[in-house]
Amino acid sequence: MIKVRVPATTANIGSGFDSFGMALSMYNEICIEEIEDGIKLLQEGQPSEIPLAENLLYTSFINTLDKYNYIYKGFRIDVTQCNIPISRGLGSSAACIVAGIMAANALMRNALNVNEIINAAVEIEGHPDNIVPAVVGGMVISLVECGKVIYSKIKVPEDLSIAVIIPNFKLSTEASRAVLPKSYSREECVFNISRASMLVNAMNNCELDKLRISVQDKIHQDYRKDLIRNIDDIFREAQEQGSLAEFISGSGSTLVSIIDKKNYDFSSNMKKFLNKLEDKWEINVLQPDLEGARIKEEIRQGV
Amino acid sequence: MIKVRVPATTANIGSGFDSFGMALSMYNEICIEEIEDGIKLLQEGQPSEIPLAENLLYTSFINTLDKYNYIYKGFRIDVTQCNIPISRGLGSSAACIVAGIMAANALMRNALNVNEIINAAVEIEGHPDNIVPAVVGGMVISLVECGKVIYSKIKVPEDLSIAVIIPNFKLSTEASRAVLPKSYSREECVFNISRASMLVNAMNNCELDKLRISVQDKIHQDYRKDLIRNIDDIFREAQEQGSLAEFISGSGSTLVSIIDKKNYDFSSNMKKFLNKLEDKWEINVLQPDLEGARIKEEIRQGV
Repeated sequence: MIKVRVPATTANIGSGFDSFGMALSMYNEICIEEIEDGIKLLQEGQPSEIPLAENLLYTSFINTLDKYNYIYKGFRIDVTQCNIPISRGLGSSAACIVAGIMAANALMRNALNVNEIINAAVEIEGHPDNIVPAVVGGMVISLVECGKVIYSKIKVPEDLSIAVIIPNFKLSTEASRAVLPKSYSREECVFNISRASMLVNAMNNCELDKLRISVQDKIHQDYRKDLIRNIDDIFREAQEQGSLAEFISGSGSTLVSIIDKKNYDFSSNMKKFLNKLEDKWEINVLQPDLEGARIKEEIRQGV
Repeated sequence: MIKVRVPATTANIGSGFDSFGMALSMYNEICIEEIEDGIKLLQEGQPSEIPLAENLLYTSFINTLDKYNYIYKGFRIDVTQCNIPISRGLGSSAACIVAGIMAANALMRNALNVNEIINAAVEIEGHPDNIVPAVVGGMVISLVECGKVIYSKIKVPEDLSIAVIIPNFKLSTEASRAVLPKSYSREECVFNISRASMLVNAMNNCELDKLRISVQDKIHQDYRKDLIRNIDDIFREAQEQGSLAEFISGSGSTLVSIIDKKNYDFSSNMKKFLNKLEDKWEINVLQPDLEGARIKEEIRQGV
């Protein structure tokens, strides 16, 4: 039996559109067991309703095994913990892909190294910003050059927490990309170049007073605001409650606020505010996950 | 008498268009003495040929004094060392402006703090990328928000040297800006956002193998290549001689190569190559200047 734990991820982080991602202490857990025959796909012990061919966890897992000619009879695949909400901009699809590949890799006694896992996962997902932090943990800058992923890990100050504010409505990446313009002025490019760079430096050197200006963005957030009701109100309230910086998580619908770890009242104060809104919102105060996806348990039959 | 030393600066650094700048160990030095009457403008002891009204050093100096109602009779202003070449993308105008303001400030017994010096200088220069490192030293990300300059200092690994390769032809910032497009695709924006961010992280964390990919750029360099004859040949040769990354300094015409401090043969090998080219090129291996502009000597009359 293989047990994999994989973190949620928040991408973009304001200015770092299609480049930044951070792993968070919110996890899915998957148990995979080799069985005598067939594929059993379960969600917390119950049969899953997603068709096999559309199930990213299953397809990533099986395709990886097939690619390396691993011979199997059948599998029981159970998503024993499914904490990462779907289509909320918290990297649930990246988590499924990474979990599938990592589980296959564990079965194949680590045929793939970390870079091969990342590249295989990005090939499926199409972009690296959620995949890389889901695999290696922490806050990461990623890019693809000549078909290969290159990434660099940013130090995140220890005294920061990441509050994710999750609504009851989904937002598909496609819908959220469709509202973006195809081109930008030189000034808009420079706006994001300077701020994304400053965000990296502010994180590395613990310049927390620079976080707010560093997450400012001209590439995507303004265009996506109409898709997320009350976003401005929520950001304003977060700032009043001591938030250091706010941004849309990935392509939404989740909103993120970076807070001081010692801002103990933030969550309860925000809850009071969120409860008054038209949509249903939840808030979760998380930490950056520094470890990334990992095999938690590996019990081999006959070993 | 006031003596000011101010460093050359290289801006953009590839991906960090209009955002990054680094101070270099190449200096202009200015001596200013209060005299009984009139303005004497000298260059290394000889009368300067630049008309007063067009002389950035003089206008920055006098306008700062006037702004703070400093009463004076006359000045002898001598550029005792003029090492920063003009219109070569090494921040000579920023150096003049900063020297003028710093000298005035020293005369006025530090009426302005560092941020006020920076903001006054950027008001004259129009953009912060050369001014800020000229004032504070090191490698800096700068941006202007609501008319105020905000900056953050990047750590530069100690084992790097900066080779500046200076041609005998000038390039005006205006000509070099005129060739740039007005807008960019989303992919081009992301290209620079990811690489500029990675450059900051690579510098902070000494990931020297990431420098080459991090200086890649889609915003300005390709468009400026036609203005700098042999640029590709020089970059190729630099890479062959062990350069870690190459880029256009500011808006040109100088080219820069980041090298390992221990690459002792780089300069002489490059010289052999440069001597074969049509234009005349000089090479200077410099260090990042970590100190910025400073008052070297201050002798007050009657004190």
